[in-house]
Amino acid sequence: MMNNKKNKFYEIVNSIKPVDGIYKKRAKEHLDSLTKPEGSLGFLEEIATSLAAIYKKTQHLEIGKKAVFVFACDHGVVAEGVSRFPSEVTRQMVFNFLNGGAGINVLARHAGADVFVVDIGVNYEFDNIGGLINKKVFYATKNITKEQAMSKEETLSCLYCGIDLANQYANKGYTLFATGDMGIGNTTPSAAITALLTKTSVFDSTGRGTGIDDKAFCKKVALIIDAIELNKPVVDDPFDVLMKVGGGEIAAIAGLCIGGAINGIPVLVDGFISSAGALVAWALNPAIKDYLLFSHKSNETGHKAILECIGVRPILDLGLRLGEGTGAALAMPIIDAAIKVYNDMATFEGAGVSKSET
Amino acid sequence: MMNNKKNKFYEIVNSIKPVDGIYKKRAKEHLDSLTKPEGSLGFLEEIATSLAAIYKKTQHLEIGKKAVFVFACDHGVVAEGVSRFPSEVTRQMVFNFLNGGAGINVLARHAGADVFVVDIGVNYEFDNIGGLINKKVFYATKNITKEQAMSKEETLSCLYCGIDLANQYANKGYTLFATGDMGIGNTTPSAAITALLTKTSVFDSTGRGTGIDDKAFCKKVALIIDAIELNKPVVDDPFDVLMKVGGGEIAAIAGLCIGGAINGIPVLVDGFISSAGALVAWALNPAIKDYLLFSHKSNETGHKAILECIGVRPILDLGLRLGEGTGAALAMPIIDAAIKVYNDMATFEGAGVSKSET
Repeated sequence: MMNNKKNKFYEIVNSIKPVDGIYKKRAKEHLDSLTKPEGSLGFLEEIATSLAAIYKKTQHLEIGKKAVFVFACDHGVVAEGVSRFPSEVTRQMVFNFLNGGAGINVLARHAGADVFVVDIGVNYEFDNIGGLINKKVFYATKNITKEQAMSKEETLSCLYCGIDLANQYANKGYTLFATGDMGIGNTTPSAAITALLTKTSVFDSTGRGTGIDDKAFCKKVALIIDAIELNKPVVDDPFDVLMKVGGGEIAAIAGLCIGGAINGIPVLVDGFISSAGALVAWALNPAIKDYLLFSHKSNETGHKAILECIGVRPILDLGLRLGEGTGAALAMPIIDAAIKVYNDMATFEGAGVSKSET
Repeated sequence: MMNNKKNKFYEIVNSIKPVDGIYKKRAKEHLDSLTKPEGSLGFLEEIATSLAAIYKKTQHLEIGKKAVFVFACDHGVVAEGVSRFPSEVTRQMVFNFLNGGAGINVLARHAGADVFVVDIGVNYEFDNIGGLINKKVFYATKNITKEQAMSKEETLSCLYCGIDLANQYANKGYTLFATGDMGIGNTTPSAAITALLTKTSVFDSTGRGTGIDDKAFCKKVALIIDAIELNKPVVDDPFDVLMKVGGGEIAAIAGLCIGGAINGIPVLVDGFISSAGALVAWALNPAIKDYLLFSHKSNETGHKAILECIGVRPILDLGLRLGEGTGAALAMPIIDAAIKVYNDMATFEGAGVSKSET
């Protein structure tokens, strides 16, 4: 039964194919007809061509409804003192999200995106409170310094949560997904995943999270190494890595990346935690890369290793390290701008402007 | 008479004082009370504190009307083959701006900014065409490989054009200015100014502009060196540098930076050409730096030298090299986001979220 579920999951993942290059080629031809030197809008032009390929359209690109999914989860490893904030902040921030007062609420409103808060594993009983999407799999991951983070069944449930939401919101007419996370302690599993899947040292994969000092940082590095030694994740098996040293929100984000690709919807990846989820999805099937846009380069140390490993360039580099999807929301106006340039600029011919002489 | 005008100009420039640090301190205190780890919104927080200091406000920041000034000018040096595009493109692009079809039109509409196109020195008689601001000082700068670019009187007229527009649009209620340029050939004077005022070699200050090949690039470097040898600008005299190897739009942009600072209005600087203008203003009075925001890091080689010399970090790095103010317009949604974070996020106290334990 369980193996059936896992086999079905791999079937879904393996069905994802790279985008068709013909759309990129046609989009580039269109961009070169616009009144600007070729390529002079740099990364904006690359974003537009990527979107053309994902949407399989080159005539008039359009982003309709945008959804930011904020997956909230607690982490047993917080008992080891890896964060400056207590675990209760995870649920307190969920209430802050629902009340519209958090960073992601402000930035999503600015970007014209809807925020969906998902309880995947918060250590609190929310009693079906309005506005919260209840997908609770557990009340927290296990403490990875003592045992593996999640069972196989739980890991699959978290992954399917992301895939199911992608399917559901694609049906609701959303055409851009963004990832977000909330989970005190979650830079720890993210660093462990980064170290294993990018083959970078734990030291170079680990950052200061919400702002820990040197002592706490060194303890964090040591206990991630401990957790890896104890749980022995198989580095060539992304599912095993996710299950043994990952987290519920990271798995759901991986699921959202997979679900976006399945539905032909671009997934805008937030910072370090979200990129750890995207890294798992990419390691499962590298074709997923074509459907991902990386919104920003986080200040968290390990983020660089992920971006280099996947071979992607983020849109923004603003020293953010808040998570929640804030970097993704902040990149949305840039994506909208790329679309508008593509659709609305005059052509050389239409505007009567001379082309270059060479 | 002329010396009076120049003395008056220096009086204006020297009256600019740095912003008062107390506003930055208070703005930081407010940001630290919001529900996020301290400093976790990185550069957004720096933008908000800068704006608080420029506007002398820490209670509720607000950006009202935004103006992008696109200064258009022709350059005699185009006769030497420094551009892939013919000079006529300057006037053709002015018509494109007035018709709303250029990159800056699309991106300014996206940002909610008004575009003002200013004829400072286009080689064309526009006959007071509707929508164009007529500030024509000449029909082109002189060819700097033969003689100095502008007379002292012309240079002052271009500088005053920027200052006067700043005064006028401040009175009209605009609270953010952005710089833009249009001028076939204008990376050449910009590279000359950069080399002289940042004390970087001409080779490292010169880029490919609209996309010239190796041969044209090397000719461009050589002729900039020739122009400097011929005109002998005094490197410690920014006015002299601007007059001898600069351009009309670059001078007007320098004037706009000065005028913004005088009026306590932030000036969002576009890419390489605009930064050459900002560099002149900064070299005249370094206090002007406090009123400038650098929107993006251009792909033009010399831009790096300017940003390092002034000691500023640009908001975006998207490989743009179009000019017109496009990078400035693209950075506006990020600035708006910084303001909204500052005004709209919940505080720890208000949201009932625990602060960090350390």
